[in-house]
This record gives sequence, structure tokens and C-alpha cells, in this order.
Amino acid sequence: MTDNSQIMRDHEGGKLRMEPTRPLRTREDLSIAYTPGVAEVCRAIHAEPALAKKYTWTSRLVAVVSDGTSVLGLGDIGPAAAMPVMEGKAVLFRKFANVDAIPICLDTTDPEEIIATVKNLAPSFGGINLEDISAPRCFEIEARLEAELDIPVMHDDQHGTAVVVLAALRNAMRLTDTKLADSRVVVMGAGAAGVAVSKMLISAGIGEVTVCDSRGIIHSGRDGLNPAKEELAEITNASGLRGDVEHALRGANVLVGLSGARLTESQIATMASDAIIFALSNPDPEVSPTIASKYASVVATGRSDMPNQINNVLAFPGIFAGAFDAGARNITPSMKLAASEAIADCIGDELGPEYIVPSPLDPRVAPAVSVAVAAAARADAESGAS
Amino acid sequence: MTDNSQIMRDHEGGKLRMEPTRPLRTREDLSIAYTPGVAEVCRAIHAEPALAKKYTWTSRLVAVVSDGTSVLGLGDIGPAAAMPVMEGKAVLFRKFANVDAIPICLDTTDPEEIIATVKNLAPSFGGINLEDISAPRCFEIEARLEAELDIPVMHDDQHGTAVVVLAALRNAMRLTDTKLADSRVVVMGAGAAGVAVSKMLISAGIGEVTVCDSRGIIHSGRDGLNPAKEELAEITNASGLRGDVEHALRGANVLVGLSGARLTESQIATMASDAIIFALSNPDPEVSPTIASKYASVVATGRSDMPNQINNVLAFPGIFAGAFDAGARNITPSMKLAASEAIADCIGDELGPEYIVPSPLDPRVAPAVSVAVAAAARADAESGAS
Repeated sequence: MTDNSQIMRDHEGGKLRMEPTRPLRTREDLSIAYTPGVAEVCRAIHAEPALAKKYTWTSRLVAVVSDGTSVLGLGDIGPAAAMPVMEGKAVLFRKFANVDAIPICLDTTDPEEIIATVKNLAPSFGGINLEDISAPRCFEIEARLEAELDIPVMHDDQHGTAVVVLAALRNAMRLTDTKLADSRVVVMGAGAAGVAVSKMLISAGIGEVTVCDSRGIIHSGRDGLNPAKEELAEITNASGLRGDVEHALRGANVLVGLSGARLTESQIATMASDAIIFALSNPDPEVSPTIASKYASVVATGRSDMPNQINNVLAFPGIFAGAFDAGARNITPSMKLAASEAIADCIGDELGPEYIVPSPLDPRVAPAVSVAVAAAARADAESGAS
Repeated sequence: MTDNSQIMRDHEGGKLRMEPTRPLRTREDLSIAYTPGVAEVCRAIHAEPALAKKYTWTSRLVAVVSDGTSVLGLGDIGPAAAMPVMEGKAVLFRKFANVDAIPICLDTTDPEEIIATVKNLAPSFGGINLEDISAPRCFEIEARLEAELDIPVMHDDQHGTAVVVLAALRNAMRLTDTKLADSRVVVMGAGAAGVAVSKMLISAGIGEVTVCDSRGIIHSGRDGLNPAKEELAEITNASGLRGDVEHALRGANVLVGLSGARLTESQIATMASDAIIFALSNPDPEVSPTIASKYASVVATGRSDMPNQINNVLAFPGIFAGAFDAGARNITPSMKLAASEAIADCIGDELGPEYIVPSPLDPRVAPAVSVAVAAAARADAESGAS
């Protein structure tokens, strides 16, 4: 682990800078980039708005938008303290997918204000990556923006996580020789990631999903469920399980931990043989990988210092790049599935219990995701699904 | 003049790109810039919000915000078509003052929505440069944001223009050996620039200002004045002139054209001897410089292909850089006066009728402006004026 003083030093002045794409040396350069020449470009876009994509930087520009309410494991730390994370995401967009991104931390946590603000910003961007916005507000904010804007909108804490979890699960199941359709998965946590992972696993054809929150198994008879959990109660838990997480885990094939809670050895000991455990809470996994390995054939975490790191950076740069390449107006379920398959497919014959997902630094991943996502977007557009 | 095809070609893909300030090569680099290391920086800022200035890029970051309602000479062309101008401004901020800037074009023209949106964006920026927002909406938007935000806010069409006009006028008056206090200035145009120029000339001690709009001289007896013009009627035109611009120009020492209107030779022929004419409308000056020279000792325009170009780029990069250096929360009248004097002072013994302001490409200007503005900001802060 890097010591704190070096981390702080490496953040001085921030992690981003803006650069011109062309030199500005002569009076002529100035008269092209600014007045009077620039008026020609303004006139052209005014006459034909679609030309904005060609003659401005906005067509491949992502706004990384947060209100700072659910940042990493730190919780509601506010917009100013969230900025280093959003700068980091912008760095990753550039590094892996050659996409420009700007961190936007908002001084409001009101969903209507967030929606109105992002809609007002939309002409300046080609896509919106919502980030670290707490559940359940994040669901409505994303759904409304996706419906009301004509550029791609994605809440990465939901879908980036879901895409990478599904990729990892596909590869883990190749190792354990089990099938999605024959498996029961316990998702611990019904926040942004838990909800999105559950839905994506269902859409990928998993046999059964059981979701637990801090009060235990989510089922349709439970009181006080928010709308997102009510929907989960409808679409998960076909067996009608009730009770605590220990009850859910009995005989389950897969555990996906997204809760920050802790599990004991006895709680996971009753899972099915050849179990798969993704203990993704950071910095402390739901169960220690050493203990998990006693009961599971494949173990993954969210940590960079352990094998099988489930890291959203495998997904989001390529997803937006692919959406831009295809001129997509939404990021559809089939685009996310394509991203997930592309990530899984980056692991070929080297697949092993400690290598089910590519390294976050693997430069092959984002281009592969981008190509797959763009192809899915074009197929969606042709079928009228987008 | 550059041909249009080259202008368009030089805008393909836009004029900006985002770059990381540090390389991202190793797993350790990733764990510093993103999780888990970045959490350390978030925690530090959460504990002490002032540290955001040190550990993010926001402290020297300007949002160039427009609603596209009054762009160059093109008028209300909307946010998408305004983007090339705002990108251009961001290029100039980087080039001349080493300041990062992001173009933000808003999908609303409602003042309350613009104010709310910019306030929500404020944690992501160190300063707000309002741009190409039409009068009179621009006055309220700027005043409200200046009052309600604790970062510098400046509508450049107003104050950038006023700062450079005053600088040019000081130097022109050195040539004609006249004094501000003894002069009468006619300002043609009561939009954003006309209002700000008039107010700045008054604060600099000009003898008398007469403002004309399309209906003629603005005086307190006129009906239908908007609040900005009502204020002008109060503070200008001490002689109580009424009538058209021709009447205003009779015997005037200075004409500052900011209107887009056209003047005839006979209209300017009655100005005082040793007159000064700034015909700043673009691309067509209020009066052709050739004709103006027959009656004026000094002529300036807004055009890059003529001598004495009055260009805001002489002011705004250094003004924001100086405000940032001093940690200023507002851009005060004394900071603007200091900027104006610093620009004028860049012309030393080389002063001449065709060299009253520095070239827009003169690299000495922004640093000189920045130093002067920072000093004025610190003096303001000490006297409690900021």
C-alpha cells in the first residue's frame, strides 16, 4: 500500500488539465480559434445542429456527475470531497478509451434539482456518467435523465458493477462447470450495485436470485420496502425464501457481496459445493478471502492487492466509447450484456481460479468492450430497440 | 482572411482535450489516482474543506458559461452553436494565463434556471466566466451569482470589454494630451458592453458620459427604459442632452461604438478636435476607420486585421489568474481598474496612434494583469472591501 504522504503529494493541483488540440501561435491561429473565424463554425452549426458533433469536442465528452452522497466506502461526504474520485474517473476515461471526461460535483442532493441541472448541461456533453449518488435516489435520477435526454446516461455504480460482476461470474462458472440457468445467486446489498447486479443476472438467465439487505431476505410480504426493493421482491426469490442471509446462503451456488456487512465462516459454510464467492465491499470484503477459499472454488474481491479484482474500470470507458462510436442515444441492456461478454472473452485459455477477469490495466479490454458495445448499439438501432 | 474550409478543418473534433497531469502506468499509479488511495484525499477534504483548493484542479478552473443568446455578432444562436466560441475562450485561458477552463453551454435561457444551474455547479470550479448572455438578463444573472457564490464571477462581455476600452482610452489620451476629467464620451449601445463601459468610465473619473441606444440619447425623461438603462439615465448625461446620436456627438471628445449600428461621415464630423473614435462592432465597425481618421487623432476597432484591436483576451485570462492567485471571492471594481492600468502600461515609449493597446498575442500582458489584479484583490481584502 502506498503511503499517505505520497498519495497526497500526487494529488496536489489535481489530476487533470485542459489542453488545446492545436497550437495558437500566430494572429491567424487566433483568428481561426476565436473571432472572427470561429463565427463561421457557429453559423454552420446553427444552420445544421448535427454538425456540433463534428466541429466541437462534445461528441466524445463525458460529464462525470456526482452529488457526493455515496462515495466509495466513505458515504455522504459532499461534492467538494468527492471531486478527487471524479477526477480519477476522468483520468481513466482518457487512459483506457481516449475519451474526454469532466468531473462535475453538484451542490445539491435534491433529485429534481440534479435532473434539471444535468438537463441544462446536456448540450455541452456527449454522455452522462452518474457516479456515487446514493440509492434509492439514483434510480429515479438515472431513469428520468435516460428518458428525457437524447445522449447516453449511465449510473456507473449500478451498471458498471453489474457488467463486470456478470463477466466474472461467466468465467467463474466455466471453471466450476456450472450453468447460469442452474444456479442460485445470493446478492447481499440492495443499494445501487445490488439492484443493478440482480437485474442484470436475471436478464442474463440466472436460475434464481435471492437478495438480502440489512433486514434479511427481500420478499414480497415484507413491509416498508422502497420502490426499488419492491420491484426486486417481484422479480427475485421465486422460491419464496424468508429469513436472514444465513438462510439465503444455505445451498446457494454464488454469493455476490455488495453490502459492506460482514459474514462469519459458519454463515458461508452451508453454501453448495463448488461455490463462487465475490466479496466486493471495499476496503473490507464481506468475508476474508482466506476463509472464503475454504468453501468456494473461486473467490473475487474489489481490492487491487488481491487476485480477481472486480473493478468498474473494465467497463465504463469502453461502454461510453462504444456508445459514441455508434451514435447511440441510450445504453441499452443488450449493450451492457455485450460489454460483459467482451470483458469475459478477454480471458482465454489462461482462465484460472485466480484469473477470471482481466487486470484493470489490461489495454485490450476497453477497445474490445467498445467494439462489442458499438455493434450491439447498431443492432439495437436496426431493430428499433434503442 | 483565412478561407472557410481551413477554419472548418481546424475545428474538427473540437479545440480542447483533457489530459492527466501524471502518468497512469502501474497498478500502484491506479491505486493512487483511483481506489483505494484516492479515498485518503477525499477524507482529508471532507475533514477540512479548504484542502479542496490544494488537492483538486478546481481552484484554478474557470467555467465559461453561456446560454448562446448573444454570440459574437450572430445573436441568439443557441447553446450548441455557441460551443466553438466557448472552446476558443478555454484555449485562450490556457494559452495566456495557464488557467484551465471548461466550456459550459446551457439548454435554458431562463435567468432563474441559469442562476440555479451555475450555483449547483459551483463546487466543481474556482471561477465563473459568463459569456455571450444577452442584455438585460445578463445584469441580473451576474449580480445574483456574484452575491450568492463565494467564487469570482464575471460577465466578460461587460467587464472584459470595459477594462480593455479604458486601457485603450488612457493611452489614446496620452497621445492627444487630454484628461479623463475634461472629456465627454459618447457610448453607442446600451447592451452588456455599453452599460459596463459607461460605468467603468465613470468610476475612472471621466468628465461626462452620454449613452445612446437605437432610440437616441438615454435620459431620465425617456419612457420604457429597462432597469439597466434607468440606472444609466441616473448616472450619465449630466448635461441633460436629448435627441439622436448626432446631437450627442456634437463636440464630444470620444466615441465608443458598441452597438452594431452605422454612422455617417456627417454624424462624426462635428466631434471636437483631437477626437478619439473606437468603432468596436464586428465585423463591421460603426464607421469605417478610413473615414474616422479624417476627424479623429486615434482610431481603434475590434478587428484583428486593423491596428489597435480592442480584444477582451487582453483582460480575462489575467483577471481570473490574478483573482485565483489572491484567493479573491469577487472581482471588484478596483481589480478591474488595476487590470486596465496594467494593460495600458504594457505600452511604454512605443505608444503611437496605431499602437495604443498591446497585440492580443503579446505574452507580457496576462502576467502583468494577473500581478496587478492580485495586488488589488489583496488590498481590497485588507480594507474589507472584498
